[in-house]
Amino acid sequence: MDYTIGDAFWSEAIGTGTLILLGAGVVANAILPRTKGFGGGWLLINFGWGLAVFAGVYASYKSGAHINPAVTLGIWASGADEFAEGIPVTALNGVLYVTAQMLGAAVGAALAYLAYKKHFDEDAEPATKLAVFSTGPELRSPVWNVLTEAVATFVLVFIVLAFAKTPADIGPLAVALLVVGIGASLGGPTGYAINPARDLGPRIAHALLPIRGKGSSDWGYAWVPIVGPLVGGALAGLAAGAYIS
Amino acid sequence: MDYTIGDAFWSEAIGTGTLILLGAGVVANAILPRTKGFGGGWLLINFGWGLAVFAGVYASYKSGAHINPAVTLGIWASGADEFAEGIPVTALNGVLYVTAQMLGAAVGAALAYLAYKKHFDEDAEPATKLAVFSTGPELRSPVWNVLTEAVATFVLVFIVLAFAKTPADIGPLAVALLVVGIGASLGGPTGYAINPARDLGPRIAHALLPIRGKGSSDWGYAWVPIVGPLVGGALAGLAAGAYIS
Amino acid sequence: MDYTIGDAFWSEAIGTGTLILLGAGVVANAILPRTKGFGGGWLLINFGWGLAVFAGVYASYKSGAHINPAVTLGIWASGADEFAEGIPVTALNGVLYVTAQMLGAAVGAALAYLAYKKHFDEDAEPATKLAVFSTGPELRSPVWNVLTEAVATFVLVFIVLAFAKTPADIGPLAVALLVVGIGASLGGPTGYAINPARDLGPRIAHALLPIRGKGSSDWGYAWVPIVGPLVGGALAGLAAGAYIS
Amino acid sequence: MDYTIGDAFWSEAIGTGTLILLGAGVVANAILPRTKGFGGGWLLINFGWGLAVFAGVYASYKSGAHINPAVTLGIWASGADEFAEGIPVTALNGVLYVTAQMLGAAVGAALAYLAYKKHFDEDAEPATKLAVFSTGPELRSPVWNVLTEAVATFVLVFIVLAFAKTPADIGPLAVALLVVGIGASLGGPTGYAINPARDLGPRIAHALLPIRGKGSSDWGYAWVPIVGPLVGGALAGLAAGAYIS
Repeated sequence: MDYTIGDAFWSEAIGTGTLILLGAGVVANAILPRTKGFGGGWLLINFGWGLAVFAGVYASYKSGAHINPAVTLGIWASGADEFAEGIPVTALNGVLYVTAQMLGAAVGAALAYLAYKKHFDEDAEPATKLAVFSTGPELRSPVWNVLTEAVATFVLVFIVLAFAKTPADIGPLAVALLVVGIGASLGGPTGYAINPARDLGPRIAHALLPIRGKGSSDWGYAWVPIVGPLVGGALAGLAAGAYIS
Repeated sequence: MDYTIGDAFWSEAIGTGTLILLGAGVVANAILPRTKGFGGGWLLINFGWGLAVFAGVYASYKSGAHINPAVTLGIWASGADEFAEGIPVTALNGVLYVTAQMLGAAVGAALAYLAYKKHFDEDAEPATKLAVFSTGPELRSPVWNVLTEAVATFVLVFIVLAFAKTPADIGPLAVALLVVGIGASLGGPTGYAINPARDLGPRIAHALLPIRGKGSSDWGYAWVPIVGPLVGGALAGLAAGAYIS
Repeated sequence: MDYTIGDAFWSEAIGTGTLILLGAGVVANAILPRTKGFGGGWLLINFGWGLAVFAGVYASYKSGAHINPAVTLGIWASGADEFAEGIPVTALNGVLYVTAQMLGAAVGAALAYLAYKKHFDEDAEPATKLAVFSTGPELRSPVWNVLTEAVATFVLVFIVLAFAKTPADIGPLAVALLVVGIGASLGGPTGYAINPARDLGPRIAHALLPIRGKGSSDWGYAWVPIVGPLVGGALAGLAAGAYIS
Repeated sequence: MDYTIGDAFWSEAIGTGTLILLGAGVVANAILPRTKGFGGGWLLINFGWGLAVFAGVYASYKSGAHINPAVTLGIWASGADEFAEGIPVTALNGVLYVTAQMLGAAVGAALAYLAYKKHFDEDAEPATKLAVFSTGPELRSPVWNVLTEAVATFVLVFIVLAFAKTPADIGPLAVALLVVGIGASLGGPTGYAINPARDLGPRIAHALLPIRGKGSSDWGYAWVPIVGPLVGGALAGLAAGAYIS
């Protein structure tokens, strides 16, 4: 069945919202005070985000489950005709996809905030509270941080575009596991946004929400997890267009 | 092959019993004294519960594998005609499903108690022994605890109802991984009952069993993991009925 | 294609050998001195054993991949006609299956010993070195230890016999994940033999091998991980014969 | 669709490059200073490498996804006619496969270095920095280290060659999980190269790259993770040729 661009809009919003609700949730669980998962470690975070993608992809079946502007851009760069069955690649549709992703991401982050409201009310460093919403590098160096995000997103988009060439019937589990792996392997320096909506949407939510003891939303870093993933996704789309046949 | 409501009753009881035997078991392993998994951490608990669902779903193939009153309610709210092939949605069948789930959950918890009997006989805080059976919040706040349970159960039931729209052939693994993800991401505040039978059945077992050094069954909290999941499951069923097509 | 009982013999031996090589290996990695996985924790051990089953099942495709006398007994108790396609259920075939399993398990344990030879040569408690080979309870209590093993094996055999009723196409991954789950949930008291060959074969290897600083093979406990799994497997086969239709 | 040996060359290079980018990446994340995954433990490394294989196999679909000279050798030793559909087993094609694997591995390691550049610039032991690139034993003993690598690679190649006999539709996930399991179980002594390209390619990259505070590339050990995996892979191919039918 084909869906309209209107269907696709809500599909991307709901899928990205699910992604960020669960993704921000696992970070909250691992780092906010007095949670059951406090100190659960990197592998917990990797599985949490990977399975957040898993749920988000199931939720966004009407739109081809991009839930990431870097994927939308990569599909465009690969020379594909459609974003999903019946949704042609056009600038307007691309803008609608990305708008829906940003909207969903912001709302998803707000829902994660509500789910962990009592833990946000506890004392914690402002940077810890921000880290539930948005990524930040361990060693701040914009050029290298962009590079790391671009490399990680290249892997994501290139492999997703290659999925169709190897038969398997595991559905959204493939991209979920790919994201677990990218996070485990390339998330160490910057926390693997690998998705501009994953970072900007929640950062906007952080700026707007009345979080107790909230500090800066760190807008000075906000361009890095937008530019890096978009560069990586576009290059991956071009590379896939040349390689995959 | 279609099964009768009598088949479905035992299927739900056996499936929910398997779920709770393994689910209570992993908590016992992680927190009771002198077990091999002591201190194994949150990811161990998440995988334990997720794979408990995995086993429980295989066991309850005759009834559509609800093994959760919030799923039964969500299916009803979504406007479906049948709880499983050949089992129409009726109030009586719903009551029989939930009764079987509660019965199975209580018996499953008792079996987990027997499997860990010698560890229950060791000295431990009464609250630790209760935590093998039933959930409890890290920060007690009924309204927020209900909200967290409702959000987490909404994700569970909404995504389960969306599974059919995305082809894959991984069977019960999909819901197992979804539960791993929900636990990792949204289990931090309340311990993710996301299933009234998962909490109430074992709490009844805790009240009845002659556990050494047993304390309160904390009946004051018992309504939270019933109301939250039912609200979340019903809303997810309504949302799925509107969205999924 | 059907295989002969001679094919099946070697299939069970190779499959069980693979199971124990990887299973004993992960324990060695987690507890022997100066390994890279030292202190890796219970979830590492659970995944190691689960994926040991995964590999062992692929290796033993000619015999239906029992690689466990409790499974062989459970299939017999369920009233099945064949151990695998073309291999009828007879006492002789059962004896040959179990003999092959024991033989493979002992050889697999010896290979794990060789792979970790330099680490066995390091100083460690004799009990630690034995624990690479065979299971032992945290709290020694034969009756309760038998019960725990019986319950865990019941779950294993009952769910394996129920696999066929729920469509999925994940092959050996289903039983691998089931074993991860059973280990996480019910392995805490006794270390989940859930397989007489898994315990007795390596215990024989421990007794025979010239391990530096070797202590007792703890023959006083050896009957527990034989009797418990056989009781659980037989009851599961009977229950499955009655329930599964 | 059949591909040419030229396609296969780039496929092996890109696949092995992806493997090493993610594989070296997870080690960097776990052991370099000030990463988000620092101290993440052995299971993180096992899943990182396993999912690195997962991504690498998807990337190298044009060449049968060997991405490992021990697999290429094992396929030859098993008596197969083709390395992949349309690529006959010849000495020249074998040399081209291995050359591509080495090239890809070296480039993949360089990309991982770039992704973690700021962390390599931090103070750390030279041996730690080398460990991101190449394997090293915990207890140096060439004969036993070769044995461990040979046993682990035997399991890898033998089971991969047995995959086709057991139906499942999980695609590259099977080998990914097998590698998680082999790493968990048999990686403790030597760090499981189980692939000559995985070790030699990055070691060459380590020797060439201008890494801050770089020490020895430990060429004295470099033959071990070449010889061990080749012996294991060849024996596995011979054993599979005899056993699998």
